[in-house]
Amino acid sequence: MNHKMIFYTLGQILKLEAALLVLPFAVSLIYGEFEILAFVIPIAISVGLGFLLTIKKPATTNFYAKDGFVIVGLSWIVLSVIGCLPFIISGAIPKFFDALFETISGFTTTGATILDGTRIEGLSHGMAFWRCFTHWIGGMGVLVFVLAILPNADGKSIHILRAESPGPQVGKLVSKIRITARILYLIYIAITVTEIIFLVCGDMNLFEAIVHTFSTAGTGGFSTKADSIGAFSAYSQVVIGIFMLLFGMNFNLFYLLLLGNIKSVLKNEELRWYLGIAITATIIVTFNVFYGYDRITPIGETIRNAFFSVSSIMTTTGFCTANFDLWPTLSKSILIVLMFIGSMAGSTGGGLKVSRIVILFKSFKREIKKLLHPNIVEPVKVDGKGIDDGVVKAVNSYFVAIIVIFLLACLLISIDGFSIATNITAVAACLNNVGPGLEMVGPIGNYSAFSIFSKIVLSLSMLVGRLEVYPILMLFNPRTYRSY
Amino acid sequence: MNHKMIFYTLGQILKLEAALLVLPFAVSLIYGEFEILAFVIPIAISVGLGFLLTIKKPATTNFYAKDGFVIVGLSWIVLSVIGCLPFIISGAIPKFFDALFETISGFTTTGATILDGTRIEGLSHGMAFWRCFTHWIGGMGVLVFVLAILPNADGKSIHILRAESPGPQVGKLVSKIRITARILYLIYIAITVTEIIFLVCGDMNLFEAIVHTFSTAGTGGFSTKADSIGAFSAYSQVVIGIFMLLFGMNFNLFYLLLLGNIKSVLKNEELRWYLGIAITATIIVTFNVFYGYDRITPIGETIRNAFFSVSSIMTTTGFCTANFDLWPTLSKSILIVLMFIGSMAGSTGGGLKVSRIVILFKSFKREIKKLLHPNIVEPVKVDGKGIDDGVVKAVNSYFVAIIVIFLLACLLISIDGFSIATNITAVAACLNNVGPGLEMVGPIGNYSAFSIFSKIVLSLSMLVGRLEVYPILMLFNPRTYRSY
Repeated sequence: MNHKMIFYTLGQILKLEAALLVLPFAVSLIYGEFEILAFVIPIAISVGLGFLLTIKKPATTNFYAKDGFVIVGLSWIVLSVIGCLPFIISGAIPKFFDALFETISGFTTTGATILDGTRIEGLSHGMAFWRCFTHWIGGMGVLVFVLAILPNADGKSIHILRAESPGPQVGKLVSKIRITARILYLIYIAITVTEIIFLVCGDMNLFEAIVHTFSTAGTGGFSTKADSIGAFSAYSQVVIGIFMLLFGMNFNLFYLLLLGNIKSVLKNEELRWYLGIAITATIIVTFNVFYGYDRITPIGETIRNAFFSVSSIMTTTGFCTANFDLWPTLSKSILIVLMFIGSMAGSTGGGLKVSRIVILFKSFKREIKKLLHPNIVEPVKVDGKGIDDGVVKAVNSYFVAIIVIFLLACLLISIDGFSIATNITAVAACLNNVGPGLEMVGPIGNYSAFSIFSKIVLSLSMLVGRLEVYPILMLFNPRTYRSY
Repeated sequence: MNHKMIFYTLGQILKLEAALLVLPFAVSLIYGEFEILAFVIPIAISVGLGFLLTIKKPATTNFYAKDGFVIVGLSWIVLSVIGCLPFIISGAIPKFFDALFETISGFTTTGATILDGTRIEGLSHGMAFWRCFTHWIGGMGVLVFVLAILPNADGKSIHILRAESPGPQVGKLVSKIRITARILYLIYIAITVTEIIFLVCGDMNLFEAIVHTFSTAGTGGFSTKADSIGAFSAYSQVVIGIFMLLFGMNFNLFYLLLLGNIKSVLKNEELRWYLGIAITATIIVTFNVFYGYDRITPIGETIRNAFFSVSSIMTTTGFCTANFDLWPTLSKSILIVLMFIGSMAGSTGGGLKVSRIVILFKSFKREIKKLLHPNIVEPVKVDGKGIDDGVVKAVNSYFVAIIVIFLLACLLISIDGFSIATNITAVAACLNNVGPGLEMVGPIGNYSAFSIFSKIVLSLSMLVGRLEVYPILMLFNPRTYRSY
């Protein structure tokens, strides 16, 4: 293991975090809020540590696959520990594990909160900005950002991109990873700016437009309102509903659009499944809610709420316009399944990813076919191209790992004794980086009542989900630290 | 596809069912119950149909893998349709889909019932006997029985054994399948007789001892009492608790014991995991129930209830001595997880089977190792022997299939609008052939409130679970009926 390179990269990350913290600090100053120490202390710590760790450039910048996992896993934990200091120092969230939970929830773009409505609306502008900004940072990935700005990041750094990027296969847009990372960030920034412009044209002020765009872009879900997006106009709800779907798409598709290759985008199989599932779910939920729960609300509003909820849950954002915990069981069950399906690979969203579901489905179909005709040799095909059997195997293993981790986490938090639906949806919402679940952790609830132990389990679940299992598992695997 | 052979085998099965129905008929006559038609009509139908289908011996007795699946899937459905007639004709369960649900629940050794306590205790001796006898028949498998008695059953009939026997790998004990099937049935009968003897020594009369032994042997769970085994003495509870664990073991182990090969049995890895999980779960549940729910009940009784419940749920029997729906969430969650783990492969129990869990766990460990050392080539080992990668792949696919079918069934029955915990545990209990779940379908509840549609979904889930997915899936796959 290349320890020096790991510490060096960690140092770079810390310096980056210091720079990122300047932004909410500036917001805090603009609004004349006296939380100077809440930002200055963490900035000082990260700058200090960052420079200490990067004094000496490591002799070899090479690293192995496992170094990639360790760097990513460690970076996210260090980022979160520093990132929760503003909340603690300002007194917004005084308890350490609560603040850490909130920050990990931010960076992993989960959006699960331990704050109730009153405390959310009571946050200062600086804190509210930082809280939503963590979504934006975590959405695209911190190390992808480092790759984009570091000059010497090529070579073996595909391991980092692979460990931090969601989805079954990682494609480089162009041959240089650094350029790929830059293109991704430019697209990310462009769509972010577009959404802000759309939102300020509605009933949001500039601050609200910016922070809610951050939460949309990262598919996070933190809001400044107790009623989440339900506090804003139908226009804002529709705009956010659509932008959530956009940020849940594979960013490669936007790149293809930029290149004018519209045909490839329209033919993309994952995109078709993604939109197909979203539309089907919206239709079923609309009918189920209208006939099974609330026939007084105009059908137009029911359609909007159904579309918004489906888009929000499937992209794993977690914004709400309606309290879906009150909806009929069928609609609630559909939302739980959508949590696990998740968004497209290569997006900022979480969940298993639509492409994995498609691969699972097709490989199962192939298994059945093989039982009938044992001698057939046929690859699983997506977009007309055969997929390597190693990828199919990895997708199967990933699914098994997620389900096993899901069950384990459910068992661990059930020690607290809350209801089964609360536990299942809390873990599903954290592991898939959604945010709200049902019952106690439903749209009008929050995670504060869980014990510290459960909060740690749920925080780890969020990291496991965002970093797709292996980096966190590697971090806790003693074998990782054995020399070859 | 060899249609003639399929119909011929189906005819044999029908004749066998007619013979089996004579037993409850005799019981009914002994107790002087006037339900003659309830047995005579189904016996006449199955004898008539059976002879019609077996008039002409098929020219070729060969069949392909898919024929094996179709025969097994079809046989179980035909068996159940005929098998539910006594309940309908006698008026014990007048509605067709209720009677079919109860019979499929019987043959698949699930033990889920649509009868409430009063109606269970009101059943005639003939009906109660037939209800529990279906468990005994379904436990070892009907086609295995046919294999045991048919003289011409060798050759390609391994496909039948493979399609009907639970577990990731099917081993023949001896080279001839017919002999293997006979040995399995002899062991089954021997342990059954032993349990009956143990139970009549306690507070059960002979009839109670016999029917409850049938339910134990098949790991089914039907009882003649509203309070299930809670209605009997501590002695009977302990005897049944231990025999459930025995019937949840791989029958090959008993064969090894007969051969005097105790060492191999003690070294068996699946057995160690099986007992290890059962003991660990018992200890956690005992402490959780004692400290979290009921400190008045003497600790001895709590241990007994915990052991009995763990043994009952893990072996997927479903007998109860305590209403575990009232236990703390941790205990309930452990029981749900045990439903999915299930018993050992090659037993009469359901669930995923411990050996599959072990293989999943080890293949995941290997994946992690491979991420660290990409060039390592290492098979997954069980009992010190490398397992074929095809088996590992099949186990992964099976897990994925079960989870997907589980989610789909949950969605379908959630249309009825019962609580999420009810739906989840109802599907888990049916798919894993356990019987009772939580809330509405808990130990003191039943399945009668579900709609006909949900009852069909749950009945199919039971068949899917008992026959391990493929036979039922093949039956509904249009591709199966296409010629080569």
